Amino acid sequence: MEIPQIELKQISQKEELPFYELEKDLRTGKAVILKNSLRKIHPVAVGKRLRCKINVNLGVSGERINLKKEIKKLKAALEYGADTLMDLSLGRRAGEIRKALIKECFVPFGTVPIYSITQEKTAGLSRSKILDEIERQALEGVDFMTLHCGLRKKHLEYARRRICPIVSRGGAIIAEHISKTGRENPFYEYFEDILKIVKKYSITVSLGDGLRPGACADANDKAQYSELYELGKLRKKCLDYGVFAMIEGPGHVPINLIEENVKKAEEICDGAPLYFLGPLTTDRAAGRDHISAAIGASLAGFHGVSLLCAVTPSEHLGIPDINDIKEAAAVFKIAAESVNLAKGFNSEREKNKEISEARKSFDWEKQFSLALDGKTAKRKYKLLNKNKDKFCSMCGKDFCAMRKFSECAGVK
Amino acid sequence: MEIPQIELKQISQKEELPFYELEKDLRTGKAVILKNSLRKIHPVAVGKRLRCKINVNLGVSGERINLKKEIKKLKAALEYGADTLMDLSLGRRAGEIRKALIKECFVPFGTVPIYSITQEKTAGLSRSKILDEIERQALEGVDFMTLHCGLRKKHLEYARRRICPIVSRGGAIIAEHISKTGRENPFYEYFEDILKIVKKYSITVSLGDGLRPGACADANDKAQYSELYELGKLRKKCLDYGVFAMIEGPGHVPINLIEENVKKAEEICDGAPLYFLGPLTTDRAAGRDHISAAIGASLAGFHGVSLLCAVTPSEHLGIPDINDIKEAAAVFKIAAESVNLAKGFNSEREKNKEISEARKSFDWEKQFSLALDGKTAKRKYKLLNKNKDKFCSMCGKDFCAMRKFSECAGVK
Repeated sequence: MEIPQIELKQISQKEELPFYELEKDLRTGKAVILKNSLRKIHPVAVGKRLRCKINVNLGVSGERINLKKEIKKLKAALEYGADTLMDLSLGRRAGEIRKALIKECFVPFGTVPIYSITQEKTAGLSRSKILDEIERQALEGVDFMTLHCGLRKKHLEYARRRICPIVSRGGAIIAEHISKTGRENPFYEYFEDILKIVKKYSITVSLGDGLRPGACADANDKAQYSELYELGKLRKKCLDYGVFAMIEGPGHVPINLIEENVKKAEEICDGAPLYFLGPLTTDRAAGRDHISAAIGASLAGFHGVSLLCAVTPSEHLGIPDINDIKEAAAVFKIAAESVNLAKGFNSEREKNKEISEARKSFDWEKQFSLALDGKTAKRKYKLLNKNKDKFCSMCGKDFCAMRKFSECAGVK
Repeated sequence: MEIPQIELKQISQKEELPFYELEKDLRTGKAVILKNSLRKIHPVAVGKRLRCKINVNLGVSGERINLKKEIKKLKAALEYGADTLMDLSLGRRAGEIRKALIKECFVPFGTVPIYSITQEKTAGLSRSKILDEIERQALEGVDFMTLHCGLRKKHLEYARRRICPIVSRGGAIIAEHISKTGRENPFYEYFEDILKIVKKYSITVSLGDGLRPGACADANDKAQYSELYELGKLRKKCLDYGVFAMIEGPGHVPINLIEENVKKAEEICDGAPLYFLGPLTTDRAAGRDHISAAIGASLAGFHGVSLLCAVTPSEHLGIPDINDIKEAAAVFKIAAESVNLAKGFNSEREKNKEISEARKSFDWEKQFSLALDGKTAKRKYKLLNKNKDKFCSMCGKDFCAMRKFSECAGVK
């Protein structure tokens, strides 16, 4: 760990956690820092006692490739408040895209190396291919990497019992490899070799959940928890090697199972920071899965998840466009800041008070400046109201509750 | 209670609650039925052991009036799955709007009579004006009415301590009346007279929360709970008179206080069905307050709220347009069905399983038919994919996890 003291002090302040507590959490792996030692960015810390944060996924699939568009998406995600970004690009030009994106990215940047390793159909998952790709991306400056190391051969039979056996791309690639070769997951086999590489660059490992449930009926099942136990063991190895690790989580989980899901991950992985995708609280929200995911993410964040991976309105339907990215980031920012208010962060409490005061005094500009997405709020306000005034078109002048009470019921 | 047995049987089936349990809940006021005895609609039952439902608000303010537009909004709300509708119209043409809307509405229809009583600025809140208006609307067929009966003179000092003292329109009108006249809330004073009228038409009283917190910092405070205790007493009176009653709830409540908020309302009001507006889990989501509200509503619903009042993206900014209404209804439908899945309703569990099976088998049309808003999902899918196929543009053909696993990893 080579984070300068001054950076740690800044983190401690921003995260409202005393310096020695931050140090303690970093030492015990309860908090991690996302920053490749080769990169020149402000490090971002992730952990349960720190502010809940959001990640936004970018990237092209084999079907659609446009570098300029991807950079626009990246800028939009940052503008809407993404704390970290991940490039999930697939296909032949994945490397090119990654290099272009990382250059523009001033927050921690994550990848899923298996996507590049298997970009050519002929490529198998050999030891050298895996380690070479990880070192290549490490040298490019990637700050954190999702590695599906916990999905083991013996787990596949549990997956087969499910409604949707495997919905993780990385998980499916590994399952395919296991099925075709009859061998163990190579990311599991070569885990210590991987750790030796990532340690050199202070890269954080994000232990991927190849068996995350992709249907509410599959949530909290044997497949998910069996892999989770494996992740817990691997995370211990990370600690032994002095490598930071996060634990990835689902997926699709109904509201009544979210708390158990989070607590179990916390317990099995001894307080490692959790990084969840959603979870989606219903399977039926296609077209608006950013909503079902934000509902689940808020609850998961409240119960202890530290990093929320934004889901877009295109989930289950296709690759997100720039508007999807904006909407996903904006909606997940609401989820994360709702969690931060609930967790009692002073800065968030103050901002909430300030915007409410501004609301009471009809200071519209101040409201927009304090809103999580002030631009959208302002555009909508202008659309709905002809004139700025001490009321809005919701109730009109005569029936504005705020106005009525302050005028007639004696608020000083 | 004059609901025919056959209707009760239908409710019992739809709500997956045995007939005698439904009867018990209705007898003890733990469930209510929304239906004016003069109206020809299917009655809708609301209660904790029944399916979580959504209400959508319609109506014009003094600033904007267009009857055709309101009817379009009503139809949109119904199309997007509103279980009940409320007309919150203000101003001189409120009566005209109400009559037009109720004619088109095939679900329970609610109003806030105080809005019409005070439509002329000169009008005070006299006993006869209140009772006459309630009877007028009862004769028109209104199924449930929000009445702010619990806000008392002694509560105003608690409201004054708040960041946002009163944000309820009805609450503000009553506070104004109390402040100007020095007298008690007339809805409180004439409560038994009101009950005698509504009883004749089997109208359900929705006991309004004039002191609902309008800022997260004001949540679960003395003002809110003092009024709630009053509502609990009034609800007992309703039971004595054989009148159905729901209890309205907030508002703005941070995630960490939602469970307490719901449990307290449940306890104080002895299990009466709860009808909450949101709650919003942050004050900073202007422009997307349907999201912060859906997050809070899901959690509130999970903890026991029976009817979720949809909040639109225009909240805090102006009067919602038709797109706001659609978005609010669609988003709240996701919240309510997430709650119903969590509550274990078989029909919801089955639909979730079916859509997940359809997802696995790439049966797109079936997915759209089972999605909560299939039209939007289908439009988005078409936009993002050139051809229907056994994959989508998210991962492309070679990397589709579902496809890969079923082809290579041996799912039968």
